[in-house]
Amino acid sequence: MTLIKQLQAPDEFVGFYLIKELEIKQTNTTPAKDFLDIVLCDASGQIPAKLWDASITDKETFFPMTLVKVQGLVQLYRERLQIKIGKIRKATPEDGVKLTDFIRSAPISPYDLIQTIHRVLDSIENPTIRNIVSFCVVKVGDKLEHSPAAKSHHHAYYAGLAYHIVRMLEIGEFICGQRPFLNPDLIKAGIILHDIAKPDEMVAQLGIVSDYSVQGKLLGHISMVSSWITEAAIYHGIDLQSDVVIGLQHIVLSHHNLPEWGSPVLPQLPEAVALHYIDSMDAKLQMVEDALLTTPESEPWTPMIRGLENKAVYRLKL
Amino acid sequence: MTLIKQLQAPDEFVGFYLIKELEIKQTNTTPAKDFLDIVLCDASGQIPAKLWDASITDKETFFPMTLVKVQGLVQLYRERLQIKIGKIRKATPEDGVKLTDFIRSAPISPYDLIQTIHRVLDSIENPTIRNIVSFCVVKVGDKLEHSPAAKSHHHAYYAGLAYHIVRMLEIGEFICGQRPFLNPDLIKAGIILHDIAKPDEMVAQLGIVSDYSVQGKLLGHISMVSSWITEAAIYHGIDLQSDVVIGLQHIVLSHHNLPEWGSPVLPQLPEAVALHYIDSMDAKLQMVEDALLTTPESEPWTPMIRGLENKAVYRLKL
Amino acid sequence: MTLIKQLQAPDEFVGFYLIKELEIKQTNTTPAKDFLDIVLCDASGQIPAKLWDASITDKETFFPMTLVKVQGLVQLYRERLQIKIGKIRKATPEDGVKLTDFIRSAPISPYDLIQTIHRVLDSIENPTIRNIVSFCVVKVGDKLEHSPAAKSHHHAYYAGLAYHIVRMLEIGEFICGQRPFLNPDLIKAGIILHDIAKPDEMVAQLGIVSDYSVQGKLLGHISMVSSWITEAAIYHGIDLQSDVVIGLQHIVLSHHNLPEWGSPVLPQLPEAVALHYIDSMDAKLQMVEDALLTTPESEPWTPMIRGLENKAVYRLKL
Amino acid sequence: MTLIKQLQAPDEFVGFYLIKELEIKQTNTTPAKDFLDIVLCDASGQIPAKLWDASITDKETFFPMTLVKVQGLVQLYRERLQIKIGKIRKATPEDGVKLTDFIRSAPISPYDLIQTIHRVLDSIENPTIRNIVSFCVVKVGDKLEHSPAAKSHHHAYYAGLAYHIVRMLEIGEFICGQRPFLNPDLIKAGIILHDIAKPDEMVAQLGIVSDYSVQGKLLGHISMVSSWITEAAIYHGIDLQSDVVIGLQHIVLSHHNLPEWGSPVLPQLPEAVALHYIDSMDAKLQMVEDALLTTPESEPWTPMIRGLENKAVYRLKL
Amino acid sequence: MTLIKQLQAPDEFVGFYLIKELEIKQTNTTPAKDFLDIVLCDASGQIPAKLWDASITDKETFFPMTLVKVQGLVQLYRERLQIKIGKIRKATPEDGVKLTDFIRSAPISPYDLIQTIHRVLDSIENPTIRNIVSFCVVKVGDKLEHSPAAKSHHHAYYAGLAYHIVRMLEIGEFICGQRPFLNPDLIKAGIILHDIAKPDEMVAQLGIVSDYSVQGKLLGHISMVSSWITEAAIYHGIDLQSDVVIGLQHIVLSHHNLPEWGSPVLPQLPEAVALHYIDSMDAKLQMVEDALLTTPESEPWTPMIRGLENKAVYRLKL
Amino acid sequence: MTLIKQLQAPDEFVGFYLIKELEIKQTNTTPAKDFLDIVLCDASGQIPAKLWDASITDKETFFPMTLVKVQGLVQLYRERLQIKIGKIRKATPEDGVKLTDFIRSAPISPYDLIQTIHRVLDSIENPTIRNIVSFCVVKVGDKLEHSPAAKSHHHAYYAGLAYHIVRMLEIGEFICGQRPFLNPDLIKAGIILHDIAKPDEMVAQLGIVSDYSVQGKLLGHISMVSSWITEAAIYHGIDLQSDVVIGLQHIVLSHHNLPEWGSPVLPQLPEAVALHYIDSMDAKLQMVEDALLTTPESEPWTPMIRGLENKAVYRLKL
Repeated sequence: MTLIKQLQAPDEFVGFYLIKELEIKQTNTTPAKDFLDIVLCDASGQIPAKLWDASITDKETFFPMTLVKVQGLVQLYRERLQIKIGKIRKATPEDGVKLTDFIRSAPISPYDLIQTIHRVLDSIENPTIRNIVSFCVVKVGDKLEHSPAAKSHHHAYYAGLAYHIVRMLEIGEFICGQRPFLNPDLIKAGIILHDIAKPDEMVAQLGIVSDYSVQGKLLGHISMVSSWITEAAIYHGIDLQSDVVIGLQHIVLSHHNLPEWGSPVLPQLPEAVALHYIDSMDAKLQMVEDALLTTPESEPWTPMIRGLENKAVYRLKL
Repeated sequence: MTLIKQLQAPDEFVGFYLIKELEIKQTNTTPAKDFLDIVLCDASGQIPAKLWDASITDKETFFPMTLVKVQGLVQLYRERLQIKIGKIRKATPEDGVKLTDFIRSAPISPYDLIQTIHRVLDSIENPTIRNIVSFCVVKVGDKLEHSPAAKSHHHAYYAGLAYHIVRMLEIGEFICGQRPFLNPDLIKAGIILHDIAKPDEMVAQLGIVSDYSVQGKLLGHISMVSSWITEAAIYHGIDLQSDVVIGLQHIVLSHHNLPEWGSPVLPQLPEAVALHYIDSMDAKLQMVEDALLTTPESEPWTPMIRGLENKAVYRLKL
Repeated sequence: MTLIKQLQAPDEFVGFYLIKELEIKQTNTTPAKDFLDIVLCDASGQIPAKLWDASITDKETFFPMTLVKVQGLVQLYRERLQIKIGKIRKATPEDGVKLTDFIRSAPISPYDLIQTIHRVLDSIENPTIRNIVSFCVVKVGDKLEHSPAAKSHHHAYYAGLAYHIVRMLEIGEFICGQRPFLNPDLIKAGIILHDIAKPDEMVAQLGIVSDYSVQGKLLGHISMVSSWITEAAIYHGIDLQSDVVIGLQHIVLSHHNLPEWGSPVLPQLPEAVALHYIDSMDAKLQMVEDALLTTPESEPWTPMIRGLENKAVYRLKL
Repeated sequence: MTLIKQLQAPDEFVGFYLIKELEIKQTNTTPAKDFLDIVLCDASGQIPAKLWDASITDKETFFPMTLVKVQGLVQLYRERLQIKIGKIRKATPEDGVKLTDFIRSAPISPYDLIQTIHRVLDSIENPTIRNIVSFCVVKVGDKLEHSPAAKSHHHAYYAGLAYHIVRMLEIGEFICGQRPFLNPDLIKAGIILHDIAKPDEMVAQLGIVSDYSVQGKLLGHISMVSSWITEAAIYHGIDLQSDVVIGLQHIVLSHHNLPEWGSPVLPQLPEAVALHYIDSMDAKLQMVEDALLTTPESEPWTPMIRGLENKAVYRLKL
Repeated sequence: MTLIKQLQAPDEFVGFYLIKELEIKQTNTTPAKDFLDIVLCDASGQIPAKLWDASITDKETFFPMTLVKVQGLVQLYRERLQIKIGKIRKATPEDGVKLTDFIRSAPISPYDLIQTIHRVLDSIENPTIRNIVSFCVVKVGDKLEHSPAAKSHHHAYYAGLAYHIVRMLEIGEFICGQRPFLNPDLIKAGIILHDIAKPDEMVAQLGIVSDYSVQGKLLGHISMVSSWITEAAIYHGIDLQSDVVIGLQHIVLSHHNLPEWGSPVLPQLPEAVALHYIDSMDAKLQMVEDALLTTPESEPWTPMIRGLENKAVYRLKL
Repeated sequence: MTLIKQLQAPDEFVGFYLIKELEIKQTNTTPAKDFLDIVLCDASGQIPAKLWDASITDKETFFPMTLVKVQGLVQLYRERLQIKIGKIRKATPEDGVKLTDFIRSAPISPYDLIQTIHRVLDSIENPTIRNIVSFCVVKVGDKLEHSPAAKSHHHAYYAGLAYHIVRMLEIGEFICGQRPFLNPDLIKAGIILHDIAKPDEMVAQLGIVSDYSVQGKLLGHISMVSSWITEAAIYHGIDLQSDVVIGLQHIVLSHHNLPEWGSPVLPQLPEAVALHYIDSMDAKLQMVEDALLTTPESEPWTPMIRGLENKAVYRLKL
């Protein structure tokens, strides 16, 4: 079975894939004919596909998130690859394939990621901080297990958010060791909280973001977390004017650093300065890693990476 | 008695003024002598003043917010006016002057402003919105009566914030009449709430802002109001995910319009778009009015106005 | 008859529409065939349409600004609706439809708008100002009755400019009442003059802008109005150095506020500051209103609005 | 007699200078004493000076634009040189010095500059263009002979504007030779007209700009020239809609290239593109030349030059 | 034979052209068919073309840089012209056409351009400067004869770089005459060196740039030239700390003027300031000239020019 | 002995300090008197000081970098502390104080820092990379032991550059462990090289930067390092076109990330992306640490930190 990442024009191939998007359209011909405009994916990537001359049965059989077996031809269209589908059928239990195998996912299991996050949470010494973080982790609930960290920028896959948090916690632990003036409780709390409202900012299924939610658009995840902290403080009877509450809200509100990057205030706590760079370093290097992984080894340059000022990354030959 | 706005070099004068700022300093001479570096103010403006050769008694008598009788000489120093104090004493009850006469203040009495705000608040038809706004008005408390709207930009005087709100409510009422697609409840709520955390963002006394508070610096008034709304909703048992709560938070968060002006989200509700322009129109025209009022009639140009891109305003001769 | 705003794929429909744009193109097939690539419109909106296999007669019958009866099918093409035309013929006198019914137009009649503008013009007390404004209104002539206010940003329809002026005059009257330091004559003059050269900046027919004129591109409407004022002053023998002439030119030149928005000078008169915000408030709220009106009620979000930083507007559910 | 450019602390010197600025101030001492705060200048530069203990006679004798003989001491105050005046008296006819010797001035005589401008003007072949340019040259009148080209940026001295025009005409002639698609009439006209309203934008005496005029601030010289062209066209009965008039106005309006540099339209004629670079090249190189000339040869770096992004220029040792 | 610049829909034509780009693609039809997606060019311009139903022979016959004889039809597709190829064959020796006739090229022969550059190089008086420049000219080698000056911005054709250098040398000579404080050696050196690494920054064949090289992307031509100067200095035993080496590197590094235009340092030598404006004037006027030349005389407006802020240029009718 | 950091007005004190800056100035009095305008420093900070009525002996005794014993009075002048010197004499051998005790310095000894750098250098496995880095370390020589990393932004003290490098190497080692796609040799090389030309960009003595060097201003340290790499490659006979040389130059050139921050190219290698964030994280957190250390514990806010967008940092009370 061929991985999508390995397809090249003009390959003919057979394999199992997941329908990620599907729309019924009409050709320009006379008379117009219906066809299915599809995006197929597997864990290695995604590719557009067309089923020409779609029958009524086709239109009633195939939907987004359906697992299918496809026989097809890889074509070059406007300099991008696409599939011309020859045969297609739904996968059956006998095929022995399961949906989660076709989803791009973090390299560590969600279970392990969540365990790590809880272990760090429990290691926060200040009980007030721990209570606030704990409240927010409970509030986001199961979604922390599978939510991506972003729509497309970075960690845009199943459990991407939890993976981002865990890697940041590693950097945070290192930097607290190197810089004793940083408060480890605030660093841990800031890392766990900084994007914790993202699952509610986006509409996602199995790590695939289809849109932003209404509150995501109207408030943004940064202000949402700030309100969650208010909620947590009220729940636990913590003074809203206390330095702990204001400090945690500040660290979250300022973590994008500049107003034009979405932060209403600039970092003004040592831990807020640190959090911004811990977050940037992990996000940017993950963009590089994701681009390298999904680009064939034979290509010296990755595609352009939007989060890196639209620059491609080069594989140096040493 | 000469108003500060009317003083010109090299006038000699006698009058009552308020000590707005005071610092004890030393001259460069040998031996060094103590002198008092003072800012005097009255309702018409403010001016720097020096008391050379300050005695021990002087240093123990005069403090900020002291009302004093001054005999002095107006001098020109580095192109700006300053007072050389000849005689100075504390005002006594017999002088019949009272502190509030020396404070710059909104042209409408705080009592009337607060009455108007409450009347409009009561006219909000949607009970959920009314409850949230009411909670915030109760929370800010007495400070709404005397707080300025800003440190120096606009409405920087006693009751400036309430005055700004009331004038905006007038514009809001007009624009809701002109544009029926606007929801008057949201417009009223947005206007009352948009700056309601400013008294907690700044440290002010009698309308004079001396600094920003810690939470003012770390959170900013925009995010503070957003948290107040969360608090209000929890208090009144309103769903935090409801369109009402999200909508009010959005209107407040977006009222500065652009990220570089301090808003983490752009306006995406009709009332949010309206609120930004109601706020701008009132603030900018007040800057113009304040500059015209504190500039002698004989001057064709006001000083530069920081909030108007550092431009001065000209009195056209028609 | 179905309004364009109400069409949905895969509707079949019959109705009268106006051909707004038309181009003869060739298919990619062998042999290539001619087809008509059309944009149909009515007062509710516009939609692309194709007439496949266009005959010689078709090509000699249909042109932009032709009223036609169409039988067609609504299709989805690249996520946007388009019409596949089945039958099409020119409208005849017997059909009882008239062109102006198919043009999007201001909600107030041009006649009434012009009357209002003249009434306000006559109420300007300063005869010099009145003469200058009057000269410019005469100069623009009939075009004021039907010109749109912009190519696509806002008020982009028949009589849109006059409608924009009239609504701004309402705001101007209100704000002069609220702020007595504003000179009502300058506000009225500024509002009537600020965009008065737009009909000469754009090439428009029935409120539909097809292009900018040469002088529109080389000078821009702001500088054009400034020259009209010079012309008016010379015609009426008014001193070009007088504060009246300079003041009116300044108010027009500065009404876009910032250089990057097209103003060569920043507002430096109270009325110039006011005019910018009166203009912004009316234009931005009209963009919101236009977007809400042309979006089906069932859609919670309007399309993105270019003049509002490319943000969509949400219909809150209270 | 020592030139100001050559003074160094702690020189004692005697010489004739011009009082460029003068203000009467009071010392901080008790009792306060009057002193004269003066700026002295000669053709080589300028320097601040103090006359301590000014007598009543002193205050009635010395004014800006008075030629004086000074005996003084050069001191270093806050890292900048200033003069402590020992003796000072007005220059008398016997001294044989004349005011214009103390004014910084273009290196070519105003008479020759004006002759050159008129010669080029007469060489414009298109009579319509020639008439418009001629009208503007007549309108600016004598001021063209002595006006500086800017307040401080470049050519900020007697006849600086005419000098700037003449040097640009040389570049213009060269570039028309090199690029035959450029119309020499438009290049000549654009160069003579581009800054011709500057003498009316600024308030200047003997090449020293003390302020901007009201119309300079409210309109700016670019829009002023555009109106002058309108005036010229009306005077000569030229159609205001003709390509000649629009073209000349465009060339002037666009010569600052970008909106943030003050141009309401971008260059869209070949000659407009050329004019911007002719103007920039002459202005920037003049800034360099002026900085080199007024910096002692021994200094490897000039002071920072505001018009060159606040960079200093270095004398390379080859 | 029709020049590409003169083709108009729906012309039928026969002529010789060069295949500039070629890709084999498949149609959307069932069954899919191969077609050739081609860009044809001649010295006057370029145009897209399709060969539908491409045979196996076709696919083995036609490649980029093949000279062909084409019989075709000009069609309008999405508002842009394209060719539907009827017949196509390779050019034969009998046709008497040669490849270089179909390449857009500088209006002066490469031989003459190189001669001029060498003549100026030899006229540099300072032997150290001459040696460094000479080293770099030798290093770039033959590529200087045919390299374009840019991918598409300006001088994007055969020998475009040499032509750009030669025209700049003319301006440089003029400006050194006008401004004696400029060092002619540095001006000559700066002009010859400023873009001399461009042939190594880009991958070009016959003046057609297909991509940037790896070192072009990773270093940029500005830093590459700086390293070449280091290399030259080491080769000739010149002190790397000497003002000559630092000065030449500075002039090259700063010639884009601002960081956002690619220069790591701002111009701080008189010759560096001059070089930036000599380069800008030549590049911008060449963009204008190129646009005018490739636009039919009947069109009053050229297409938008990317290097001129996306503005089109107008042909004024005087 | 009182540390400068602990001085408060109006303390009287005696202690040893270093004269960091000294200028002879004159008072405004009649007759003018000479005084010494001094900046005193010790390892804890610096403060301005005045010696009024300076004798000829004083002027011949005290110079920058002189160790002195001072008896003085702390005064408040324009809201900043300054010293009025009562008595002052040069330190003698008997005083037992040594200059280096008065210099602010990295918290790790230069010797240890250099050892660490050499150890890491030796651990670079790729011999070509190691040779290039080694060449540059030899070239900078002893200066690496004492040079600060910047004039005032961060690590602005004795051995600050070496300290910055060593801390970055720690982060680099951590991040290479976390991200195996990063090449440790390139990370090590990038860190050691990125600022290695700073000692030649600045003029510094004992960690105190007095100015930038000519080549520092004309080339900047980023381009200087790029040339050093060219030099190193030529010295070791390494191909200048090889990926190693280009890669190292790219990593150095791009480490400021954006053009407006000084980098002529954007990061396009994984290690270049990493280096930028390693550098930022270390520099920004050091700015925070330096500000916290030099601010009295009793102050909740540090002074504004220029490199952190002019924001102060707050000490949270948990």
